[in-house]
Amino acid sequence: MPYLCLLQEGNESLPRLMDKAQQNGYAVIAAPINTTEIPLEYEEAPICDKQAEFTYPDLIFPSDHWNGKVINVLSDTMDCDARDMVVRRNAEEVLKRDISWAEHLQYGGYTMLRLKSGNNLNMARIASSNVKGLLLAQVPLYNAKVAHSTWRRDINDAELERLEQEDTWHWWNNFRWAADFNPKIKVVLELCESDRPSLEVVRRWLGEPVEAVIVPSTMFICNRQNYPVLPKAWQEILSYFMRARVNIIISSDVHDNSLKLYSEYMLRFQEIHADVHELQSFEDVLEEPLQPLYDNLDCYTYEVFEKDPAKYKLYQDAIEQALLDRVPDAEKKQKLTVIMVLGAGRGPLVRSALNAAENTGRKVRVYIIEKNPNAIRTLTAIAKKLWNNKDVHIFSKDMREFSPPEPADILVSELLGSFGDNELSPECLDCAQKILKSDGISIPCKSTSYINPIMSSKLLNGVRQVLRHETFGRQKQATYHTHAESGFVVLLKNIYNIGLPQPLFEFVHPNPQKPIDNSRYKVLRFEVIMDCVLTGIAGYFDTVLYKDIKLSINPETHTPGMFSWFPMYFPFSEPMDVKKDQTIEIHFWRCVTKQKIWYEWCLASPFHTHIHNHGGRSCPIYCT
Amino acid sequence: MPYLCLLQEGNESLPRLMDKAQQNGYAVIAAPINTTEIPLEYEEAPICDKQAEFTYPDLIFPSDHWNGKVINVLSDTMDCDARDMVVRRNAEEVLKRDISWAEHLQYGGYTMLRLKSGNNLNMARIASSNVKGLLLAQVPLYNAKVAHSTWRRDINDAELERLEQEDTWHWWNNFRWAADFNPKIKVVLELCESDRPSLEVVRRWLGEPVEAVIVPSTMFICNRQNYPVLPKAWQEILSYFMRARVNIIISSDVHDNSLKLYSEYMLRFQEIHADVHELQSFEDVLEEPLQPLYDNLDCYTYEVFEKDPAKYKLYQDAIEQALLDRVPDAEKKQKLTVIMVLGAGRGPLVRSALNAAENTGRKVRVYIIEKNPNAIRTLTAIAKKLWNNKDVHIFSKDMREFSPPEPADILVSELLGSFGDNELSPECLDCAQKILKSDGISIPCKSTSYINPIMSSKLLNGVRQVLRHETFGRQKQATYHTHAESGFVVLLKNIYNIGLPQPLFEFVHPNPQKPIDNSRYKVLRFEVIMDCVLTGIAGYFDTVLYKDIKLSINPETHTPGMFSWFPMYFPFSEPMDVKKDQTIEIHFWRCVTKQKIWYEWCLASPFHTHIHNHGGRSCPIYCT
Repeated sequence: MPYLCLLQEGNESLPRLMDKAQQNGYAVIAAPINTTEIPLEYEEAPICDKQAEFTYPDLIFPSDHWNGKVINVLSDTMDCDARDMVVRRNAEEVLKRDISWAEHLQYGGYTMLRLKSGNNLNMARIASSNVKGLLLAQVPLYNAKVAHSTWRRDINDAELERLEQEDTWHWWNNFRWAADFNPKIKVVLELCESDRPSLEVVRRWLGEPVEAVIVPSTMFICNRQNYPVLPKAWQEILSYFMRARVNIIISSDVHDNSLKLYSEYMLRFQEIHADVHELQSFEDVLEEPLQPLYDNLDCYTYEVFEKDPAKYKLYQDAIEQALLDRVPDAEKKQKLTVIMVLGAGRGPLVRSALNAAENTGRKVRVYIIEKNPNAIRTLTAIAKKLWNNKDVHIFSKDMREFSPPEPADILVSELLGSFGDNELSPECLDCAQKILKSDGISIPCKSTSYINPIMSSKLLNGVRQVLRHETFGRQKQATYHTHAESGFVVLLKNIYNIGLPQPLFEFVHPNPQKPIDNSRYKVLRFEVIMDCVLTGIAGYFDTVLYKDIKLSINPETHTPGMFSWFPMYFPFSEPMDVKKDQTIEIHFWRCVTKQKIWYEWCLASPFHTHIHNHGGRSCPIYCT
Repeated sequence: MPYLCLLQEGNESLPRLMDKAQQNGYAVIAAPINTTEIPLEYEEAPICDKQAEFTYPDLIFPSDHWNGKVINVLSDTMDCDARDMVVRRNAEEVLKRDISWAEHLQYGGYTMLRLKSGNNLNMARIASSNVKGLLLAQVPLYNAKVAHSTWRRDINDAELERLEQEDTWHWWNNFRWAADFNPKIKVVLELCESDRPSLEVVRRWLGEPVEAVIVPSTMFICNRQNYPVLPKAWQEILSYFMRARVNIIISSDVHDNSLKLYSEYMLRFQEIHADVHELQSFEDVLEEPLQPLYDNLDCYTYEVFEKDPAKYKLYQDAIEQALLDRVPDAEKKQKLTVIMVLGAGRGPLVRSALNAAENTGRKVRVYIIEKNPNAIRTLTAIAKKLWNNKDVHIFSKDMREFSPPEPADILVSELLGSFGDNELSPECLDCAQKILKSDGISIPCKSTSYINPIMSSKLLNGVRQVLRHETFGRQKQATYHTHAESGFVVLLKNIYNIGLPQPLFEFVHPNPQKPIDNSRYKVLRFEVIMDCVLTGIAGYFDTVLYKDIKLSINPETHTPGMFSWFPMYFPFSEPMDVKKDQTIEIHFWRCVTKQKIWYEWCLASPFHTHIHNHGGRSCPIYCT
């Protein structure tokens, strides 16, 4: 649950501010680290020396308060990036002194620093050199100048471009590049009534590590019941941040009497717009893709997938439709349809097939083919208990080596991974189609992968972390990855879509091609709408089960409620600044040998990169 | 809280065993993974085929039961290390099949495997190749043969030595060496009424990763009230394991009716002997030693240390005693004692000094010297509020550069680290003694470090983990450690003391030596009492504050209640088997340059090792 914080300057006592905040529903306070100066040099500091009169010592709070309930706001009156050396040196001293005091108070708390322009590299260098807790960089959500210029006709394109470089996102971008995307540095966005940005600007911020938004109390207007509320247009913007679980800081005057009304409003607003779901803990967590052909899935994995509320219903619909199309009503008593479930796991597709037969009144014989002997055990037990009056046959076999007593009318399989073909469904189904009648069909009959370039500071750091820890799932698969060249499965959340997903590779089943070639190569181009940082490529797929019955994890057409697949993420080894109107040209390969399949990817525009995962060195998919 | 588990063989239904266990107070069950065979090869397995009749499929429990509430006991009728190749191959197949099924049921649960002799390397190879959850190696606590031989007079030394090699600890030791001390492999010790070991054997087990002890229900005897209890001698042994937070498995017959009585008894026993304290979460956790001379301590660290209930009281006692000795009652109105608190932090020693003056009625002037400007802030605030009528003077200075207006009678400091001199108290106090009167004293006046060789599988893995993650505290101190050559601070728990601690280096204050040389070199020898594995060296210290007032973290003389210092651990880069009656010869150095101080250590007997931390490459202690 995000926190609500009260930011006030000019309080005489932090403990009193804390009391006031807590009485009014704020869990956290933000306040200047010191309202009076800390002397830079100490010599003997006798008790009654006026120069050494401090506003507060550390003892006013126990250390858990300093670490969880106080955001220390550093002084912002000085300019560490001033041209004048004396001014600059003095500013550096004040910043170092403030940081030293903040580090003294906190071992893992929050320190906030205001950026006042994009000219902040020296400040970034000093502030990021030793971050113990979280360093929050405070910037306006949007720059007034840029905001206003979009309404003006007297500005030419060159001038507009120059102004856009002044956008506050660039202030942040300069700062965090200098700090090498340090995951302990997050951004705090200050809203301003007069500077309302487009929703695209808001979406771009959602690819950044946004810790909180600052809502000035002056933004509240009174509704008809005379309660303070936010203007509609700002509500929409704020709702984006609420879905991203961003915290809220209310900044107000010391004498403000409506603190409780703001907090009640914001808590209600948070509640309404919160994105609460069961899989929250998976968001932006990088996982190594499953390799069900190489590894046998375990009981837990089967159990999770079997709980998908949408997938097996759609499979059942598809089989029903196919049975109705292939067996006219008149023949339904005689004509037997042979359904082969390839890779049956613990049997959810068998259930779909048997339900479809029952619902349509068609006669079916179901061959169940499964290579995992542990799953066979479950299937046998289920068959004994539930399917003992059905025409059901279990085979403990790899489908690629299976010779059935008769050919199939319908092949049913769910061999698709997050990127469609990445669990080798083309290779498996191509092998299996020899057991299909000439007029037989495959469910699914087509799968398509999609990609788009994205910005995500969180995933960038996730990949760096994985590389650092070198813990790649199970020990036997541990490999030393010299480059960030592995594809990951990840529930994408904290990202900005630089372009919309475009179709990449397509596979159809049965495959009429002779000889079959499942290698692929495609070049896709994406226009950059706003300056941003390219960190990697998101991957999705959709599949046609039968006619118009489809499954999709492409965000534009996502099957409602289906959770069996999270998207893919293919990182670039380094983040790259890309500019508005530039074209991102991605080259993507699917490479095939007898032993393994793998993807390779690179960028050809606006920059060149090396080919990632070249020769499958980082993430091969094994065929046996 | 440790769990209580019920182990029964021959149950027809696992869910019924689970019900029975839970009704009788057992949270976990252990049972053979399968009471009937799983066929090794599956072809078509038609529903009514008798050969394929399984006892249970995975569906009898949800996966969280398989992962947290069931210990799967693998078949132990086969010998993977048999000389006969056919027998061996067959055993390998059965073991692989069992493990495959266990892995199917669990993604992070418990699998248990019985060791039947020390001849188990092939089994270790197979079983440890891919451990997803915990692999528990079940061995008898002690070998009957060895147990009995100690009572026999007809056995000569050579024979006894041979027999001792048969001790069950060697079965485990062979197994885990083959598995390279894999932290996912733990040992389960089966008690047996007739084979009661010495307490030294028990203590050795406490250096191993003991997951549980198996108590056969036949070990219970009836007390006068006719309740089942354990014999006194076994209670003592079991109490060791309870303090080590080992889990308990009661093994019993299917028809046993006293299950509830056992569980009640064991839970009560656990409660009585549990080692519950506030610092539990620090046990066996490796921490980088503080470097207060290089880094300024933060508010949290000060707060923790100030809470020590014993330390400052003993300092106060020492100062009181010194004041009484130095100022006769007759002179107490006139004679002023100048006390200098060196490295005052936030002032706990100042409080001790002022209390001592008050209690003895002696006149004192206190100079407070502290180099951390953040702590000065706190001191100034305290001085203003609490010490404004005292003769107290604060100096924001490094004690090594401090020139006071007058010399001191008593220097008071707490610059000692876990290893005594490792926070450079000798260097600091040697510099400061120039401000001491010729008859002045230092509290403390002496410190001594101690070491002893230890066995700890947990710390061995802890060091390996640290090396893997390369996360050494704060970023600025990050170094790539090619060898396991860093000293750590760690609350030792899961260890076996191979020998008792012996004094290593001694420092006295004031130091009469001219010129002063704080480098040291000493060789210490320890006799090995039982075969075991040497993993590293534990370090402690004690200090004389004044006369007989001491602080100690040496386990033999530990100051009651004091928690300010955890022991040190100096690892060897590889574990080493050492044998009874061998001599462990440790060479230990304290090396000194102007910029840094460091320790080096190596073994000269029974093996040679390279010199660890040579030149201070892994853990230097900086002087500035």
